[in-house]
Amino acid sequence: MSIDVKRILLGKRLQTKDLAHQALSKPIGLAVFASDALSSTAYATQEILIVLSAVAGLAVWSQSETIAGTTTPVGNLALPIAIAIAVLLTIVTISYRQTIFAYPNGGGAYIVARDNLGETTAQVAGAALLTDYILTVAVSISAGVAQIVSAFPALLPFRVEIALVVILFITIVNLRGVKESGILFSIPTYFFLVVMGITLIAGFVQYFSGTLPQLPGTIDVEVHHAGELQALSLFLILRAFSSGCTALTGIEAISNGITAFKDPKSRNAATTLVWMSTILITLFLGITFLSIQAQVYPVELPTVISQLALAIHGADSLLYFLVIAGTALILLMAANTAYADFPRLAALHAGDGFLPRQLTYRGGRLVFSWGITALALFAGLLIIISGASVTFLIPLYAVGVFLSFTISQAGMVVRYNKISKLKPGEVVKGLETDLHYEKNWRFHQIISGVGSALTFVVMMVFAITKFTGGAWFIVVLVPVLVFIFFRIHHHYKEVAKALSLPRTKVDTHARPVQTLILIDNVHAETARMVNFAKSLGHSWKAIHIGTNPEKAAQIEAKWNERIGEGSFEVIPSPYRLLAEPIREYVDKLLDETPDGYVHVIMGQLVMDTFWEQALHQNSAFIFNLALSGLERVVVTNVPYQIHHEVDAEGHDRLVPSEHQQATPTH
Amino acid sequence: MSIDVKRILLGKRLQTKDLAHQALSKPIGLAVFASDALSSTAYATQEILIVLSAVAGLAVWSQSETIAGTTTPVGNLALPIAIAIAVLLTIVTISYRQTIFAYPNGGGAYIVARDNLGETTAQVAGAALLTDYILTVAVSISAGVAQIVSAFPALLPFRVEIALVVILFITIVNLRGVKESGILFSIPTYFFLVVMGITLIAGFVQYFSGTLPQLPGTIDVEVHHAGELQALSLFLILRAFSSGCTALTGIEAISNGITAFKDPKSRNAATTLVWMSTILITLFLGITFLSIQAQVYPVELPTVISQLALAIHGADSLLYFLVIAGTALILLMAANTAYADFPRLAALHAGDGFLPRQLTYRGGRLVFSWGITALALFAGLLIIISGASVTFLIPLYAVGVFLSFTISQAGMVVRYNKISKLKPGEVVKGLETDLHYEKNWRFHQIISGVGSALTFVVMMVFAITKFTGGAWFIVVLVPVLVFIFFRIHHHYKEVAKALSLPRTKVDTHARPVQTLILIDNVHAETARMVNFAKSLGHSWKAIHIGTNPEKAAQIEAKWNERIGEGSFEVIPSPYRLLAEPIREYVDKLLDETPDGYVHVIMGQLVMDTFWEQALHQNSAFIFNLALSGLERVVVTNVPYQIHHEVDAEGHDRLVPSEHQQATPTH
Repeated sequence: MSIDVKRILLGKRLQTKDLAHQALSKPIGLAVFASDALSSTAYATQEILIVLSAVAGLAVWSQSETIAGTTTPVGNLALPIAIAIAVLLTIVTISYRQTIFAYPNGGGAYIVARDNLGETTAQVAGAALLTDYILTVAVSISAGVAQIVSAFPALLPFRVEIALVVILFITIVNLRGVKESGILFSIPTYFFLVVMGITLIAGFVQYFSGTLPQLPGTIDVEVHHAGELQALSLFLILRAFSSGCTALTGIEAISNGITAFKDPKSRNAATTLVWMSTILITLFLGITFLSIQAQVYPVELPTVISQLALAIHGADSLLYFLVIAGTALILLMAANTAYADFPRLAALHAGDGFLPRQLTYRGGRLVFSWGITALALFAGLLIIISGASVTFLIPLYAVGVFLSFTISQAGMVVRYNKISKLKPGEVVKGLETDLHYEKNWRFHQIISGVGSALTFVVMMVFAITKFTGGAWFIVVLVPVLVFIFFRIHHHYKEVAKALSLPRTKVDTHARPVQTLILIDNVHAETARMVNFAKSLGHSWKAIHIGTNPEKAAQIEAKWNERIGEGSFEVIPSPYRLLAEPIREYVDKLLDETPDGYVHVIMGQLVMDTFWEQALHQNSAFIFNLALSGLERVVVTNVPYQIHHEVDAEGHDRLVPSEHQQATPTH
Repeated sequence: MSIDVKRILLGKRLQTKDLAHQALSKPIGLAVFASDALSSTAYATQEILIVLSAVAGLAVWSQSETIAGTTTPVGNLALPIAIAIAVLLTIVTISYRQTIFAYPNGGGAYIVARDNLGETTAQVAGAALLTDYILTVAVSISAGVAQIVSAFPALLPFRVEIALVVILFITIVNLRGVKESGILFSIPTYFFLVVMGITLIAGFVQYFSGTLPQLPGTIDVEVHHAGELQALSLFLILRAFSSGCTALTGIEAISNGITAFKDPKSRNAATTLVWMSTILITLFLGITFLSIQAQVYPVELPTVISQLALAIHGADSLLYFLVIAGTALILLMAANTAYADFPRLAALHAGDGFLPRQLTYRGGRLVFSWGITALALFAGLLIIISGASVTFLIPLYAVGVFLSFTISQAGMVVRYNKISKLKPGEVVKGLETDLHYEKNWRFHQIISGVGSALTFVVMMVFAITKFTGGAWFIVVLVPVLVFIFFRIHHHYKEVAKALSLPRTKVDTHARPVQTLILIDNVHAETARMVNFAKSLGHSWKAIHIGTNPEKAAQIEAKWNERIGEGSFEVIPSPYRLLAEPIREYVDKLLDETPDGYVHVIMGQLVMDTFWEQALHQNSAFIFNLALSGLERVVVTNVPYQIHHEVDAEGHDRLVPSEHQQATPTH
């Protein structure tokens, strides 16, 4: 029955050949890979403004709160900050284009680092990315829910609950296995692009015609900075800049997924990357500019997107709700991409022996079930802790992304060094795709180097300006994770060494076996154990742990009456313990036969349902645990199944299956 | 290592004979059993006032908010309500005195009901009591923490966390096994009685001398009723009355613990019960009267006890802090008594087959570990849900207690009927202790009947006036629990029937056994499995689930090189599944030999620590699960231990123990 439920929820099994993708065209590829990057426009502007509101509170647009020595309101700083971020984005895009050509089979930071910078750096990049995929899910879902509650404030108290339901939904969908249906995936992305495009165009038309309304003062806003206002400082501007840099998250997605594109894969992927960055920059700058003109409130709820759409389209207009729906949808898609990336990267780590092997196991639906489950649990925990607040999560986010940017591009710098040492015409495996860079490798190297240095600086700015806000956690977490990865790796290597056999036939001569039947009472299950022991053909002995002397005597009497063969021994247990007496008894037997096995046979009632089974677990578990540590002790579980059966009168009865029923001797 | 931690936390094992109590004198018995009842004075008055504040908000003492047609402030109603509760308490006390004489071996509601009203009613009483023990823990700890945060408001935001730490502490203490050291237990009770006695005397002296201060208006109070004020109604007065009736909880404790007293047990227990009730009534009325005079705020925080102590002793006085400490301590002790009662009652239910058998299992420290753990989890959950608020929990509380009062006393009514039918001089087992009641059984029956009827009425008042406040949950929960209890009972009875053997020797003739060795790879663990199979002396076959054809071919080659005997078969698994292919394969074998066993041998790596073990669990678990449902399939786990060992150079290495290492054939 439980299997049926699983089928309904998770769907039919898929075969290995189903794993192959369809090749994606550029427009579809854009839709599939861009949701993470594009969706960050939903919060990047807002987070810049929230940081600036530390200076002026809600009055970031007021002339009285101005940048020192000028008449410009503090909020206007958002535009130069956004332009700086756009410049950074352009450089990173050019740099990642190179990676796409260098790694036509997929150039994620983990792979580039492993190739060029060694195992440790690769593990650092991997730890940073795994952390950030978890944060992508938490931030995107929180931001998506924030859009929805902005439009429907009555849902405000249920933010966390809604976010958790969404996580559960995405998790189930991914455990089913998302067939990478490009067309289906591109609907939310293009829907978002169309409604945001209309919104920005309408906004600019209104702006140039002087009809862009400023926000009505009647919106209920959640005041963000209850604390004291601060003076404007370079530190604060840098903090606002780093908050806005979350716009860059997801830009690496295409470089991981090059193989999904149509031939020529690298060229198509590179073109798509340029398209994506162009759209991203346009949206980000447009949203920022119009938010300044509309003088949105620098708050998390209602979201800046919601306020802007309200200003441009008016309340209760269909377009307003379409903007909310489109933004929420693309954020959901962004979370969904992390559900593909995290398990895949975790499986890569696990395959290299740096994470538990279970993560490499694909379930019946071809998905990495363990990785998906782990991602859902961690992201859900973050949402509960943060109360589904984007502003709370932002300081944790993007440190990892920028660390992986830095490492990936530094790896490319090293790679160009290798290429520079190639002799003319020399072909080296793994470097062949770079040959057309041979002549101007220095130029490309400089781009990667500049990109790496810039993203490193941003990462440091991020870590320092957000340190007390939560970035400290990531700064501590990443090295801890790397340490754990290496401990796991060490463990697997040591186990492999301990298990290794010589390359020759090994000695497996038979040893003596002493058989014990562990009995709790004398009933049909007992008869079955005796039956199995007799079928093995060795001599055996029945033992009972006597926690209650009276009961033990009754059991012995029953034994003699109903089984009546073999020897029966009661091991007294004055402390009513189960584990220790059997352990001591078996230890004694082991000492007596230093070369032999002790074979313990125990019964196990097997019920049809989980809840019934739960009523019958205890002693077998304790015995198994107690004996598993002993060498040369082998434990056999003889199951005895009891099934539900509807009898002639229509009553549901529990019965052992027919051929298992104990019958009297003839 | 894990065992050592357990020993340190949980202490040395105890032997069965340690179970015997020391016999308690009356003063010590009072201290041991009265904490639950006496501690309820810490919140009963307060909860009456909070209900009354629905009429007047914080202005319950203001002349402008008066009882219709009079000049009495609403708050003054607390006194007549408290007097009514005291009368009820007196009647219940007299009624329970009778139970103590009738059941000298302990007369809890479950036992009295089982004896006189049948199984179903007993289960209802049990369900009600189990629910209320959980609530006793949650309410007492919440109230204790409320005292502490009243004195130290800085701790206010950490109420839930403090409460959870306290639960954890009490749980560990109880898993260690509380040695019922009467002297030690009586310290908190007498400490509380002394400081409360001093406080009440000082309060009355101040009152009669006209110097009892009214509270300063400067106390910060958490306003309780943010909603609209209601008119005073009978409904509201009844609700206030039922809130105050929580003062009666715990009064049944002595009737459960009669055997702990010195001889004559029943007489000593009965006298102690009367003492306890007298003290309880004195404290409750005194606190209520003085709270009215001091005009305390009708709020949960700071608590009424804290406000009263502040008014009488002044802020920063030592006595104020002693009152807080004494009240918090006795509340802690009250929670602790539930840790004795709940597991004991749960074990009683489990022993009768109405709850999982595991609950009857006493751990190494003679305590019912499962019951203690279950209690801690449920109480912790309640504290989290309620935010450690007594006012939130009160509507859930006491419905169950009054239900069990009603049932217990109704049981006594039936019992007196049985006695009335005894012929003069006739001695019936179980009724003999009642013989001195023979003559005036009718009088005693009327008392029990009146008590039962009154507590039934109070229960109904409680359920109705608090229904929407949370009592509905208990009204739904108790029948659901009873239903579950009977389902469990039915299950155990059915299983016993299915397992029963005829009272004669049963047939256990040997059957054919087919042995399979399930191999994942060829290494030392594999060699060990082959070794065990050979030692059993049956023919066997090695099988490998081929999720990867390439790897399968490599494994076969290794098999031929290093094991080189027996047959090796790859079961192809194109879906990369593990469970289904083995299941199908075994099913086929079973069909071929309808009378025989299929014996599946699988390996199990055993590590020294939990975390290392977690890196090696997956396939064995899946296989065991897949095969456990199949009849005539027996699974044997051959363990292969890998230990930590420090080598000559001081490095920590993983090694198989010496005699397990695979050696080449000579």
